[in-house]
Amino acid sequence: MVIIGELINTSRKSISEAVDKRDAAYIKKVAIEQMQAGATYIDVNCGNKVHNEVEIMEWLVKNIQAAVDIPLCIDSPNPQALEAGLSLARTGQPLINSITDEKVRYEAVLPLVLKYKAKVIALCMDDTGMPNTAGDRMRVVSSLYKKLTSAGVAEENIHFDPLVKPISVVSQAGVEVLETIKWIKQDYPNVHFACGLSNVSFGLPGRKVLNRLFVVQTMALGMDGYILNPTDKGMMGFIQAGRTLLGQDEYCGDYLTAYRNGYYD
Amino acid sequence: MVIIGELINTSRKSISEAVDKRDAAYIKKVAIEQMQAGATYIDVNCGNKVHNEVEIMEWLVKNIQAAVDIPLCIDSPNPQALEAGLSLARTGQPLINSITDEKVRYEAVLPLVLKYKAKVIALCMDDTGMPNTAGDRMRVVSSLYKKLTSAGVAEENIHFDPLVKPISVVSQAGVEVLETIKWIKQDYPNVHFACGLSNVSFGLPGRKVLNRLFVVQTMALGMDGYILNPTDKGMMGFIQAGRTLLGQDEYCGDYLTAYRNGYYD
Repeated sequence: MVIIGELINTSRKSISEAVDKRDAAYIKKVAIEQMQAGATYIDVNCGNKVHNEVEIMEWLVKNIQAAVDIPLCIDSPNPQALEAGLSLARTGQPLINSITDEKVRYEAVLPLVLKYKAKVIALCMDDTGMPNTAGDRMRVVSSLYKKLTSAGVAEENIHFDPLVKPISVVSQAGVEVLETIKWIKQDYPNVHFACGLSNVSFGLPGRKVLNRLFVVQTMALGMDGYILNPTDKGMMGFIQAGRTLLGQDEYCGDYLTAYRNGYYD
Repeated sequence: MVIIGELINTSRKSISEAVDKRDAAYIKKVAIEQMQAGATYIDVNCGNKVHNEVEIMEWLVKNIQAAVDIPLCIDSPNPQALEAGLSLARTGQPLINSITDEKVRYEAVLPLVLKYKAKVIALCMDDTGMPNTAGDRMRVVSSLYKKLTSAGVAEENIHFDPLVKPISVVSQAGVEVLETIKWIKQDYPNVHFACGLSNVSFGLPGRKVLNRLFVVQTMALGMDGYILNPTDKGMMGFIQAGRTLLGQDEYCGDYLTAYRNGYYD
């Protein structure tokens, strides 16, 4: 299970302030806490610092890299910022967040995937805009799969993001994502997934329950990667119980550890 | 969604005592509470009263029938007790719990399904014993489907029970059930399901979380019927949120009602 810790994002106030003060100790602390809570990647996003995103990305990556020994997920719509982060990422194989099938973005990000031998999150989106149905998404998946693998990206290095939209706007938004996951698993059994799911509950009360149960549902269909807050014990407890029910936890050992550590209190 | 309220079962102490005292008011109260909590059927099981099961079944059915206007699920391994209950069930189409592909049981229960035009829960079990893999289960499903439909049972009236076994004994026990549900939905899209799931967590601590999440997982694969305690707000809240995420709740109206009624507190 790929867990990409989402907390180091300058759209969050505490991170933005720490970055403005160049408070490396705080950034390192947040990175370490996420790793200890079960993150397998640390996401690094300073996309809202538009005037000096490249410089801040370099500063963040250097400091996070000094604190944790798990790979980073370099997260930006800006190819210069992606390259700044990738060029400094040293532990394991970095993950690029993200490529799409939009012509300009695809052509700017693909060379970075190849140059840094990175894994890449591929959003089900192209120049026709945001998809609605599973069929819309599969058209993009098929196009991106063909192009990326032809360009030399191993299919195991592709993590599809099925693009989650709010069920408060369209009732079928969740089902279209589940259908997409099933379809991708069937047609491309060797690719992976990575996605934030909290959009699903946008506009509704009690969002935590919906977000956690949507993780459990998507896991049951074969989803194997999430961008989330790994220090949320409720969420991580459900992911653990979900893995155990799915037979991914021999002798239920990880579940028993989570239970003893209070994940279900 | 079919919700079969499981509380009226003489293996439960309070029900056994009420039956022994012929305390009809208590039995009616439990039936009404289950209906109000969302049950669509009331299960009636007095199988451990071996000496006078038939007489007790009659007494229970008469009294429950007088209290609620939803159909009953007549639950017994004993064909005489099944017939006693079915002959008195008046509201809607009753459900028989259960038939199997064991020769003796099949031949005793099939005539009751036909005579009372009942729906029937079909357990994935035959004379070779309890199944292990999804493949074992599908062999029984295919045999029962063929026999029942040839005998004149409409496929919509068959509810398969995929037979849930503890993951504490075999790690893959949950996955085999999920695989079976997927397979049944694919090969027999018009049949239904009905099953108790709490076996999955047998032998583990924190069973409630595992049971509730297994319901959410099985729903994501297409399961549409459960035998459970409908007065368990935590469970019913998850089922409701699950339905909403699966696009079965237009404008999220049922979810919002459940939220306002404290199902997620």
